[in-house]
Amino acid sequence: MKSKKPLILVSNDDGIHAKGIKSLVSFIKDLGEVVVVAPSFPQSGMGHAITIHEHIRLDKSDLYGDIEAYECSGTPVDCVKLAKHHILKDRKPDIVLSGINHGSNSSVSVIYSGTMSAAIEGAMEGITSIGFSLCNYACDADFEHCRPFVRQIVLASLKDGFPEHTALNVNFPDLKHSDIKGIKVGRQAMARWQEEFENRKDPRGRDYFWLTGNFTNLDAGEDTDEAALAKGYVSVVPCHFDLTAYSALAKVNEMFK
Amino acid sequence: MKSKKPLILVSNDDGIHAKGIKSLVSFIKDLGEVVVVAPSFPQSGMGHAITIHEHIRLDKSDLYGDIEAYECSGTPVDCVKLAKHHILKDRKPDIVLSGINHGSNSSVSVIYSGTMSAAIEGAMEGITSIGFSLCNYACDADFEHCRPFVRQIVLASLKDGFPEHTALNVNFPDLKHSDIKGIKVGRQAMARWQEEFENRKDPRGRDYFWLTGNFTNLDAGEDTDEAALAKGYVSVVPCHFDLTAYSALAKVNEMFK
Repeated sequence: MKSKKPLILVSNDDGIHAKGIKSLVSFIKDLGEVVVVAPSFPQSGMGHAITIHEHIRLDKSDLYGDIEAYECSGTPVDCVKLAKHHILKDRKPDIVLSGINHGSNSSVSVIYSGTMSAAIEGAMEGITSIGFSLCNYACDADFEHCRPFVRQIVLASLKDGFPEHTALNVNFPDLKHSDIKGIKVGRQAMARWQEEFENRKDPRGRDYFWLTGNFTNLDAGEDTDEAALAKGYVSVVPCHFDLTAYSALAKVNEMFK
Repeated sequence: MKSKKPLILVSNDDGIHAKGIKSLVSFIKDLGEVVVVAPSFPQSGMGHAITIHEHIRLDKSDLYGDIEAYECSGTPVDCVKLAKHHILKDRKPDIVLSGINHGSNSSVSVIYSGTMSAAIEGAMEGITSIGFSLCNYACDADFEHCRPFVRQIVLASLKDGFPEHTALNVNFPDLKHSDIKGIKVGRQAMARWQEEFENRKDPRGRDYFWLTGNFTNLDAGEDTDEAALAKGYVSVVPCHFDLTAYSALAKVNEMFK
């Protein structure tokens, strides 16, 4: 680790008021200089959205006492971009931490996740980046059992770094600390959300819809994030942002020869 | 090709009124039964966002004459989900087409792109899916030179299909038809957006920001989408939604042994 204190940028997608980000800051605040830049309002499911058609507001926040903090009207990715290019400018963070999300971001949920998008945006900027999520959607979920693992993972990442342009997707099972078996590194499971829409009528008789859905794991592999979580492990998946399906290149080449 | 007419679902991220989606529909409407489900308003840069905290509206549209069309208040991904699970229900589309986007979605732009997210959502549902984009951001851009390539790519995809859970990212150079050299299949270039924020003051003296930025290609490879476009080819990249950085697994495993 460098001799000067590492610069730690913290964001999330549940918003600056969420218990998950407050817990994350309390777990790691002695490990470096912390700067919080998080959305003013919940931004779950925002994927890698950026704000193009609207302007963005950024306001100082005193929610974190001595810790420099800002709330931003935009998406999690906007938060990281504003932090890097406007707030911190020439001071490149040593690490970007996002979360702790209220709810799982394992398997294909990584694609929809604002939490992981903030981490992946960090990775795109060449910064060591980690997204943390707890498999419990409740606003008042208990994050305390995540503390030692968060510290272990952040310290190891600051010390060793990991391959450039990679972000870790860390998911915690919703178990007591004593029931957690350890950390397991694996791959993203192939799963899907079987969507349904709840069709309601507004007071004026017009239809509207709420997205609902059930998660189905289609992947029997023992080396996936879902398998790790089901067995009581903290799951860690290294993620990148190269969407090229290399295994499909030959077949697609053949189609357009 | 099957004997019955293929079912073609069309969406985009520039909204149902955009010239790009109207052009796309006009290029392919004789190739099958077309159903359009597109956002009511522009949704560029929405990435793989879904609407969780708001309800969604869906209204029939007569913008496309005889063609069944709907406008949706949600994101491009919401459009595909609503089409699949509410509008079409048991009728699985043979192909999902998204675009034609006003502006490039090559390289890392694929991550931010609502156009490609609609296509990737189709791939997640196991449907052959293609996102089309033109390297011209103008509202009144001329898409006519894309016509023969769109038809060739759609016909080849309906005939051959391509590996499951893959979506094609097709980008057209902004050239006259006679200047286009052909189709080149390749990989996503490693590039980045060097962001800047324009800081303005509102009439009440309060700061607000607009996201701006410059694109920098950091990838000298000859096999990338950027290289293909620069040489005057239509670029095709097969994309998947497994973000696992397989090449990083061993190193990350080592960190948490």
